[in-house]
Amino acid sequence: MNRKIITSAHGGGGTATKEIIDIAREYLGNPALDQLGDSALLDLDGTGIAFTTDSYVIDPIFFPGGDIGKIAVCGTVNDIAMEGAKPLYMSLSLILEEGLEFELLERVIASVASAAREAGVLVVTGDTKVVEHGRAGGGLFINTAAVGRRYEGCDTSVSNAAPGDLVVVTGTIGDHGVTIINEREELELESGLKSDVAALNTLVEELLTSVPGIKSLRDPTRGGLAAALCDIAGASKAGIEIEEVKIKVKREVKAACDLLGFDPLNIANEGKAVIVCSEDSADEVLKICRDNEFGRESVLIGSVVSEHPETVVLRTTMGGKRIVDMPRGENLPRIC
Amino acid sequence: MNRKIITSAHGGGGTATKEIIDIAREYLGNPALDQLGDSALLDLDGTGIAFTTDSYVIDPIFFPGGDIGKIAVCGTVNDIAMEGAKPLYMSLSLILEEGLEFELLERVIASVASAAREAGVLVVTGDTKVVEHGRAGGGLFINTAAVGRRYEGCDTSVSNAAPGDLVVVTGTIGDHGVTIINEREELELESGLKSDVAALNTLVEELLTSVPGIKSLRDPTRGGLAAALCDIAGASKAGIEIEEVKIKVKREVKAACDLLGFDPLNIANEGKAVIVCSEDSADEVLKICRDNEFGRESVLIGSVVSEHPETVVLRTTMGGKRIVDMPRGENLPRIC
Repeated sequence: MNRKIITSAHGGGGTATKEIIDIAREYLGNPALDQLGDSALLDLDGTGIAFTTDSYVIDPIFFPGGDIGKIAVCGTVNDIAMEGAKPLYMSLSLILEEGLEFELLERVIASVASAAREAGVLVVTGDTKVVEHGRAGGGLFINTAAVGRRYEGCDTSVSNAAPGDLVVVTGTIGDHGVTIINEREELELESGLKSDVAALNTLVEELLTSVPGIKSLRDPTRGGLAAALCDIAGASKAGIEIEEVKIKVKREVKAACDLLGFDPLNIANEGKAVIVCSEDSADEVLKICRDNEFGRESVLIGSVVSEHPETVVLRTTMGGKRIVDMPRGENLPRIC
Repeated sequence: MNRKIITSAHGGGGTATKEIIDIAREYLGNPALDQLGDSALLDLDGTGIAFTTDSYVIDPIFFPGGDIGKIAVCGTVNDIAMEGAKPLYMSLSLILEEGLEFELLERVIASVASAAREAGVLVVTGDTKVVEHGRAGGGLFINTAAVGRRYEGCDTSVSNAAPGDLVVVTGTIGDHGVTIINEREELELESGLKSDVAALNTLVEELLTSVPGIKSLRDPTRGGLAAALCDIAGASKAGIEIEEVKIKVKREVKAACDLLGFDPLNIANEGKAVIVCSEDSADEVLKICRDNEFGRESVLIGSVVSEHPETVVLRTTMGGKRIVDMPRGENLPRIC
């Protein structure tokens, strides 16, 4: 009998991960879970809240631009923000290996503290477990969960995109994923590249409190820009058309992708947002984003169309068109 | 230079774990975190909520009486309940190893679903990560976080015990920890022993809505009854005196502890509560507990005293007295 087993692809955030989500939905399904957003949107005595969780297993633990502590805060803060909520409270759960140096743990906790302070969230509860040496990835894993309060009247669901809307990305893509693979595989790419890991809650708050035309928000983490756009197109039952020439990819990211056969569209980002907005609000969206330190290089990359529903199409620099598929997920394990 | 490293004791829930909590408090400290309860108690637009997290690294994954999925739900539900709140929403984050069988994962998720349904909580959000074979303990780790609503006017903090109050335990102690060590070390104890893992939120709700005299609640998990009582005595700045003859320990648990040199007071439980209540409410507390399927063997084990503040004293069966220390935490790693 051929028994089905977990592979690294199942952690990649693409179609393979969906197989696990399907099992979870089969057994646990309820209206809140079935939204499948970055956070669950819930009602608590009339207050709209968002609730999310993420585990972080990134290898290496420290990398240019950040570390597992910073990413554990920013990733979870962003999951709350993308659902149109203000992150308030966070939990911190540590799975540590025997033999881990206290000094390293202290550096990680200091980084959690600094990122939480910057994002304006309080770490209010936690847990510590210890496992045998080598049994927590080679150092430590972190889980964070967070609770936020929804901004009133805001709905940023991936199902809201409609033909005529425009698509903005808040900067270059692929920086995080290529930084990690560069560290891990010792590619020795030209120095200077670092992860974009950042908390985007302030940027999102500025957008949601000033621009009425925001339709959908998503952070293109695992599975990259491709997965985020496929999610939006699928949930909105609309087509999306993007232009390759508009998408900003750093030279060293492009070089690494060429070398390794990766598509920059599939590479994880940890400090970027995909914003779908009405056509008449796009100028204001771009202005607000470019005025924010984490959105300086924001750019309009395409639009939502009535053709090819549920499908993302890329107009290539060469003038051709190709379909952008939901990545399966195997190319970069332990990226966050 | 002698560098300090993490040892299994740091995961034991005793004094060694406190060293890590101290680092966390140094960097992250805020009034909610500093309560150091099983959950953080927070205010959200006038609604009192409880928020908690726990990671589960138990080895083996399946054991008599339960599995990692059931314990991940019950443990987190109990952390919310012990703080005087009703668990509502839960997150489920999986860290899976490459090579894990889908069938095993499905059994665990089915167990999560069944335990959540029984406890009346909804799993509303989740995450999946995959790491290399052997790098998630030898199978999988689970993190759950939960949000609950506080019962109005209830304060079950460990700091509320006062001289004259009585101490109730809802059944036999040590069943969970000894079940796990029996499985892991193949002690081949007489069959029939199983983990007590259970969600106690219904029992707690019955108590809090019927008896006004509940002072403190705590579930004696890692560190066992000793750690729970030391926490209460310490936080309340009161003494606690308990009687060995009153404490129920199953024969096979006692035998295993004798064999291995463990103290049953230090062994983890996963379906028990320690209840401190006013003297005049003790009869009603015992009645409610004994009428509940998870409290049939509830028993009064001692009282809060004005002597020896912050110290727990055991009157032994032989008529002597000994101090019950906060365990350091090394004897049973990966117990939950």
